[in-house]
Amino acid sequence: MSRISYVNGRYLPHRQARVHIEDRGYQFADGVYEVIAIRHGRPIDYARHIDRLERSLDAIHLNWPVTPSVLAQVIRRVCHRNRVMDGIVYVQITRGQARRDHAFPARPVPSLVVTARSGRLPPAALLETGIDVITVPDLRWTRCDIKSIALLPNVLGKQAARDAGAFEAWQIDADGFITEGTSTNAWIIDASGRIRTRSLDRSILAGITRDVVFEVAAREGLAIAQEKFTLDEALSAREAFLTSTTSFVLPVVKIDGKPVGGGRPGPVSRRLAAAYAATIDAQMAGRAEAAT
Amino acid sequence: MSRISYVNGRYLPHRQARVHIEDRGYQFADGVYEVIAIRHGRPIDYARHIDRLERSLDAIHLNWPVTPSVLAQVIRRVCHRNRVMDGIVYVQITRGQARRDHAFPARPVPSLVVTARSGRLPPAALLETGIDVITVPDLRWTRCDIKSIALLPNVLGKQAARDAGAFEAWQIDADGFITEGTSTNAWIIDASGRIRTRSLDRSILAGITRDVVFEVAAREGLAIAQEKFTLDEALSAREAFLTSTTSFVLPVVKIDGKPVGGGRPGPVSRRLAAAYAATIDAQMAGRAEAAT
Repeated sequence: MSRISYVNGRYLPHRQARVHIEDRGYQFADGVYEVIAIRHGRPIDYARHIDRLERSLDAIHLNWPVTPSVLAQVIRRVCHRNRVMDGIVYVQITRGQARRDHAFPARPVPSLVVTARSGRLPPAALLETGIDVITVPDLRWTRCDIKSIALLPNVLGKQAARDAGAFEAWQIDADGFITEGTSTNAWIIDASGRIRTRSLDRSILAGITRDVVFEVAAREGLAIAQEKFTLDEALSAREAFLTSTTSFVLPVVKIDGKPVGGGRPGPVSRRLAAAYAATIDAQMAGRAEAAT
Repeated sequence: MSRISYVNGRYLPHRQARVHIEDRGYQFADGVYEVIAIRHGRPIDYARHIDRLERSLDAIHLNWPVTPSVLAQVIRRVCHRNRVMDGIVYVQITRGQARRDHAFPARPVPSLVVTARSGRLPPAALLETGIDVITVPDLRWTRCDIKSIALLPNVLGKQAARDAGAFEAWQIDADGFITEGTSTNAWIIDASGRIRTRSLDRSILAGITRDVVFEVAAREGLAIAQEKFTLDEALSAREAFLTSTTSFVLPVVKIDGKPVGGGRPGPVSRRLAAAYAATIDAQMAGRAEAAT
């Protein structure tokens, strides 16, 4: 079965899925995106991703290319045609094709691209061993709350991690505080046992998994402090973990080569990871019941 | 005659010139570019643009997709096939097509796109009247010395200018200093008569026209201070102007709606604009002689 991708109204063999060289996504990074996890053939936290996509579109003054209900249909169909039961769907919206000029075209026709691929989430082995992160200076722009495709700094950070044999790079702002990973949110259980993650501002993305972990923690009777932390605080933390759509809750066991806590996934991280996974299972089971 | 564009080894009708949806330029803004002015069918300051392109490639750890001599040939051919005597050529290099993953692909095959279009540079009417700029906060990343395609903040700034009826937006850094325009460098002749522009650091692009203006000014016996300036200094300046590949030297007569100097192009700006234009004419005449 060959992979099928959706591009501006057409379902195409993935290898032939193309956009114009003057699509503003290609020339200006003038677009936004979402990655949504698929479990049992259904999207996880779909409504939250669509809400965030709408916030990103609003922030760059871009309209929906199709109605939300058509988008939902396209996403279902792309997943179905690619037989994705467990995996991800990728949705990208740009300001479309126009003669090159920085300013918006007079009558933009947004581009919509949707792809899907299979892959069990999260990698179970990593949950057991935990992962390493390095730290890098945060090079990014001041609107990291917008999920834009202007990802070059994230690419360079992730590659620095890869070069160092690490899974992720945590980015450090000009004041010495960790903002977030290049594609994940950053958390610690600090030396005094408080679960901490940076509060939402323009320096980080409002992670969907981050949001859900707040609800999961509340059910577990665990308080979370929305308080940014430094590298030193992370290094002296009892535990650390990261969250994202594809990583779920993933324990961090080393930062810049130095072990965090005992160098193994800590009890609070493991508890949150298990509770998060159970929440997703329940969400999917609830949907399956609702569907029958 | 239909427009022809170059995409990865092929000369295609522009309307059919496409790249894959998983080209990293489209998904990650993982690429760099140059815009080169064409006069009498020949590129202006070609070697400097190619040097800068190489610096941009190095900065993001990307190799040339073709040798510089092949690139020169492609550029010549694209200009020729589009009958561009006066206009611009656009060169974009990205990390090519790969399964979506922030980190670099193991064996990247860079993409190369070259387009050209006609248009007399700079717009002569604007030289006479001067142009308006507005100011906006500088939202960009910390590596504006790299000419990357991650241009979303520039797009938003340019559109803010357009919405305000202005030609360009000058960006102001966190310390209150003007960095540069969204696609141009910023200059003033300050209240004490000194020609000032920001020194080269990671907060601005090393403009080719900016470089040439230094040489032009030296020949004119005019000193330039590489010293950043605030909005207040710009508002109280005797004159202001901007420089870029497509704007050449363009007088600025209003900033945020307030007239600079007399609200008309000032004598130093006009002198530099004329001297710059003469330098380009001489460069082109020299080349034409060399070619015969």
